[in-house]
Formats: sequence, structure tokens, C-alpha cells
Amino acid sequence: MNSELASDPGESTVSVDLGDRSYPIHIATGATGRFAAAFARSLGDVSHVLLIYDAAVEPWAEALAAQIRVESTRVDAAAVPSGEPSKSIAQFGQLLDWMLDRGADRRSVVVAVGGGVIGDLAGFVAASFARGIRFVQVPTTLLAMVDSSVGGKTGINLSGAKNMVGAFWQPELVWIDTLAMKTLPDRSYLSGLAEVVKYGVIDDAVFFDYLESNAKALVERDPEVLRYAIRQSCLAKARVVGEDERETSGRRAILNYGHTFAHAIEATAGYGTLLHGEAVSIGMQMAASLAIRLGRCDAGVLERQTEVLQACRLPITFPEADVAAMLPVMMRDKKVAHGKLRFILPTKIGHVELVGDVDPAEVETAIRAHC
Amino acid sequence: MNSELASDPGESTVSVDLGDRSYPIHIATGATGRFAAAFARSLGDVSHVLLIYDAAVEPWAEALAAQIRVESTRVDAAAVPSGEPSKSIAQFGQLLDWMLDRGADRRSVVVAVGGGVIGDLAGFVAASFARGIRFVQVPTTLLAMVDSSVGGKTGINLSGAKNMVGAFWQPELVWIDTLAMKTLPDRSYLSGLAEVVKYGVIDDAVFFDYLESNAKALVERDPEVLRYAIRQSCLAKARVVGEDERETSGRRAILNYGHTFAHAIEATAGYGTLLHGEAVSIGMQMAASLAIRLGRCDAGVLERQTEVLQACRLPITFPEADVAAMLPVMMRDKKVAHGKLRFILPTKIGHVELVGDVDPAEVETAIRAHC
Repeated sequence: MNSELASDPGESTVSVDLGDRSYPIHIATGATGRFAAAFARSLGDVSHVLLIYDAAVEPWAEALAAQIRVESTRVDAAAVPSGEPSKSIAQFGQLLDWMLDRGADRRSVVVAVGGGVIGDLAGFVAASFARGIRFVQVPTTLLAMVDSSVGGKTGINLSGAKNMVGAFWQPELVWIDTLAMKTLPDRSYLSGLAEVVKYGVIDDAVFFDYLESNAKALVERDPEVLRYAIRQSCLAKARVVGEDERETSGRRAILNYGHTFAHAIEATAGYGTLLHGEAVSIGMQMAASLAIRLGRCDAGVLERQTEVLQACRLPITFPEADVAAMLPVMMRDKKVAHGKLRFILPTKIGHVELVGDVDPAEVETAIRAHC
Repeated sequence: MNSELASDPGESTVSVDLGDRSYPIHIATGATGRFAAAFARSLGDVSHVLLIYDAAVEPWAEALAAQIRVESTRVDAAAVPSGEPSKSIAQFGQLLDWMLDRGADRRSVVVAVGGGVIGDLAGFVAASFARGIRFVQVPTTLLAMVDSSVGGKTGINLSGAKNMVGAFWQPELVWIDTLAMKTLPDRSYLSGLAEVVKYGVIDDAVFFDYLESNAKALVERDPEVLRYAIRQSCLAKARVVGEDERETSGRRAILNYGHTFAHAIEATAGYGTLLHGEAVSIGMQMAASLAIRLGRCDAGVLERQTEVLQACRLPITFPEADVAAMLPVMMRDKKVAHGKLRFILPTKIGHVELVGDVDPAEVETAIRAHC
């Protein structure tokens, strides 16, 4: 923990330990004035910043750009339209052309300001320009703060296949300021809580207890509870990523709890019908039901998970699901090995395991339990 | 060295040592019948191969595909038009869509069959699909055999900026069969010799002596001399890459001897006027002249280099050069740091060094010496 930040009890730093690719995650509320200092501390001498931001958070991006300019660093900024369609080959190419046009070189730094779409897209741009330049994540949604901005997965979509193209590329710094969510709609905010609950289920029973006790304050965005929840989420993610940076040992797969179901829900419902976190919430319910059906955990896991998700005002069923269409999508998921279905399933609150070669009939029954 | 291959004096294996990313380079003449076995030895169990090939070498690609199919591996193949324009964002996107359509997954393997354009493009596709799948390089031009297929640099072009987008992504195997060059035009073949001569100048004085003595046999494509020259070139490149895989220590930069000039020649002459190796030949002459002007080596270096390049029937001047246009291009080169010109310059045959902050007037004089 950085000593300067530690002196303010409202701020803290989580470290992602990846050898020479390690980086800090700063978590604070109302710390824009300290961004340039943290940036300089993590990156050293920077001559040129390429700030790529979600058009919806322009004022926030401008405040950060002003902070960086204070240090006499040249800043070029590009707005990207909000929403999943921006994670395209076309947008990727446009940003790269723009960077070349702005005179970017190997020492330029990309700063991504926005939610997961911007972080994933700008991260892949940074990974690919001149075969990789440094980048900084400034997440402005809860989902991005607790999930996509940490861990180095970057990427874009192909038609019908999310995140099918990308790179593992770690940021130099993740800067989380909960004030960035000031204009975030409630539905988006709440959807981010699904990933927070996920960390409790997969890796941290004590944190899950905390969420059971503090769900109301979290829903109301109490700053202290929120910072603590983000911190515990980032710590859990950092632990898992530190053990399996490139998803080779299988350990990192536990982060996909509920996600194979969620991706199939999102793909068949049409992206945008449900927010990602909403689909993850329903997907975790399906995964817990599947675990119970396969005799891997008791019914109490589903009960407690259901209560916390409901307290976080998240959907736990999806009556409009096109069940017949979901299975083929799951078979095409990039986590499928040799055409066999695999799932991350809980054994108890705080622990999950990878279960291979699951009978599709059991999967369908688990889906139907939440439609 | 692999014992099976070592028993045939006409074949050999060079190892690129990069820890868990190490891989072998097989060098042979007429060994297509042994490709599938080498493939299986390096990659283990493979269910699906995506063969991406230059349309100009279709028969060669088909022979390899047939070899892989003998092992009951599913092979999908895509032809890519010959030439630099294929290294585009559009072609990159098309190949990724094609792979998804063919049911590629994380265990699929990309096999690149062609020259540098195909290897760079298919390598970046492999690096990016599902955040990175395995790939194999089967170079079919001399330039690709001694340079681009070894070392893990992959990438595509932006308008006016070669290799501006890409990834470091190492192959699992490089398979060099000199018979693949059967249909390679003389001019293309000879242009590859420029990179061969380069290795002598930058890293191996004994090999340079060998080239002085054997240039005629090399020009006539004597199989034994050719295999030896390829082997020494790959050994030199493997050494340098092993010391500086991601171009972070500066060591790898020595491979760019002559290239900052060459890129500027290519860009201002219009890509295609000169072959890459031809531009490198002229670029090395300019670099040697610059080194002499700066007092870093004696005139003998240029004299010996000139003689070998001429014996290899390579151009040593470019009278059509647009000198005024070249300097701004060099300033935009992605190896430029903070706008200062840096060059790899010889101190003697077999040794080069990085020289920073060179006076543009000296650079211009060195260019004019070879126009």
C-alpha cells in the first residue's frame, strides 16, 4: 500500500502481482485532483497521452485530461460511441489510424475512460499499436471497476461472438474513483453488483457474509461500503489473475462462474435486452441449480445467493429465454474444449470448481428452473 | 539438435530459446513427407488446422494440407492475395470471421504458408483469435526463411506505416524447406540475400567471410550452401531474439541495421518499386557510409559490404531516391524515441552499435552518397 494514500482512510491501493507486469489499483472517492500524481508515479516520464473515452462521460474525461495537461503532457482525446457495437474491427481500425495521425509512438500511453466496452477496446488498441504500448484504465461503471478493468483481458467482438478477438495486455495503473459513477443510471450500477456477489460465491465466504449484511447500503451507493466492496472484489480478482494470468492453468476460469449461461442468454436475447450483470445474475442462478442437480452442493447455496441477488435488486429469472437456442450458443463458447460443455460450479459459498463433460439435458433443466 | 534429423546431414534444427515459448526451426531440402511428423512432435494433439496461404503457392499449401490430413486432422484453408496490401485491417477482420465460421476454437492451430506478408498477417490473426492460439510458420521465400518467420514479430500495416499494428507472438514451429522456393523469381530470391549479408555484418564476421567466398554458389541456389546460409542466419536471429524477445533492452534493435533507411526508401518510392531486401541492401550502404562519416568504422567495412552485396546481384544505389521526402519519414519511424534519430551502425564487420541523436545533415549526406 502506498504510504501517501494510506494516510487517507477513504483511499486504498490493491496490488496486482504479475512480476514485471504488476500494477496498482487505486480506489477512492473524489480524487481527481490526485490523478496526475498517481499517473506520474506509475508511469514515469510520459510525453504523449491518447485518451479514449466513452462519449457519455465526456466531462469526466475532460477533467482527467486537464489534470494530465497540468504536467505539460500532450493529450489527444477521442470519443467513442457508448455501447457494445463499438467493440468492432472497424472501430479498432479507426482508433489506430487516429493514433498514427496524432503522432503516437512507442512511448505514448493510452488512457481508457469508460465502462467495459471502452476498456476492452482501448486495451486491445494499446496492445496492438506498435506491438504494444502502455495503458491506464479509468473505469467509470461499477462493472468495469470490479471486473473488466482488472486482469488484462482486452478485446473486441466478431459478429455473434463476444470477445473473440483480443490480447492479454495488463494496464500500468487502474484508477477507480467512485465519483465517476455520479451519472451512472441505477440499472447499470445494480448490474455491476452481480460481479461483486460473484466474488463472494467463488472465493470469499466472509465477503459474502458482509454482502448479506450490507446489501441495502450497497444498493444506496454508501461510499464507504461501496469502496470496501470494490476493494474486496479487486483483491479477489487480483488473487486469481496472479495465479493464472493467461488462463492456462484453469484457475482463472473460476471468474467465469455464471458466465457461460450469461453469454448464451445475452446472445439469444439479443445483446442489449439485458445488461451483462443482469445476465450474470441469472446465469449464476442457473449454475447453482446445475450444481445442486449434479449433487455438488446443497440447496442452501442457491437460497443464500438468491437472497443476496434479490437484495441487490437483480433479476434471478428470465422468462423470455429462448432455451432451445441457448445450448448451441454454449457449445460455441470459446471456453468449450473439443465440443464438451464445462461449467464453474459451487461446492459451497466461497468455493467453486471446474466440472467437465456435463450432460446437456441437465444443463437444459437448470436453465428451465430460472425461466 | 533433434537426433532423427541429425542423422540426415542435409537437414538440421536450430532452436530459438525463449523459456516456455521456445521452438525449433527445421531446415531441409525436399522434406514435405516429414512435415506431419514434425508438426505432431512440436504441437501434440491437434484437432483443427487453419491453413492461411499466399495464393501464389497454392500447390505447396495443398501438399502440406494433404500431409496434415493424413493424421486425421481437420484442415480448413484460406488463400490470401499476394502482396503488401493484404496486411490490412480489412484482411485481418476477414480472416477472423472466416475462422469463427469454420468453428475454430482455442485449440485450433494456424499454419502460415507464404512469404513475410502471410506470416506477419496470419501470425497476428493467431495472436488475436481467442486472445491467442498456436501457430506454425512455413516460409516460402528466402526473406521469410531468414527473417520474418523467426522471432515472433507479427503485424499489419496502417496507411503509410508498415507493421504499425501487431503483436509479439512466437510460433510453435518454423518449417523451412528450400524446395518451397522452386517457383520463387530470381529477383525475390536475391532480395532475401540482403538479410543474409546483414547477419554477417551485425553479428558474425566468420559467416561474412564465408559469404565472400560462396556468394556465387548462393546466387545459383546451391542447396548445401543455401541451407548453411539459412542456418547461420536463423542462428544469428535466434541468438538476438533470445536476448531481447520484446525489443525492450535495445539488443534486438541491431536486426534493424539498414532498415531505417530502407523503410524511408520504400515509403517514398512507393511500396513495390523496390523489393524489401533491395531497399535493405541500399539502406545498409547508407548506414555504413553514415558510420564512416561519424568516425565509427573505417572505409574497409563499406568496401567489403559493397563487394558482397554486388556479388549477390543486389542494388547498392538508388538514383531515383526522393531525398527530401525521406527524412520526415525517418522521423516518424516507430523506432524513433522522442523525435530523435537513432541508427544501428557498424564498428567493424561482425559488430554494430546503437547510435542516438544523429545530426540530420549527416544522415542526408549518407543518403546522397548512394543516390
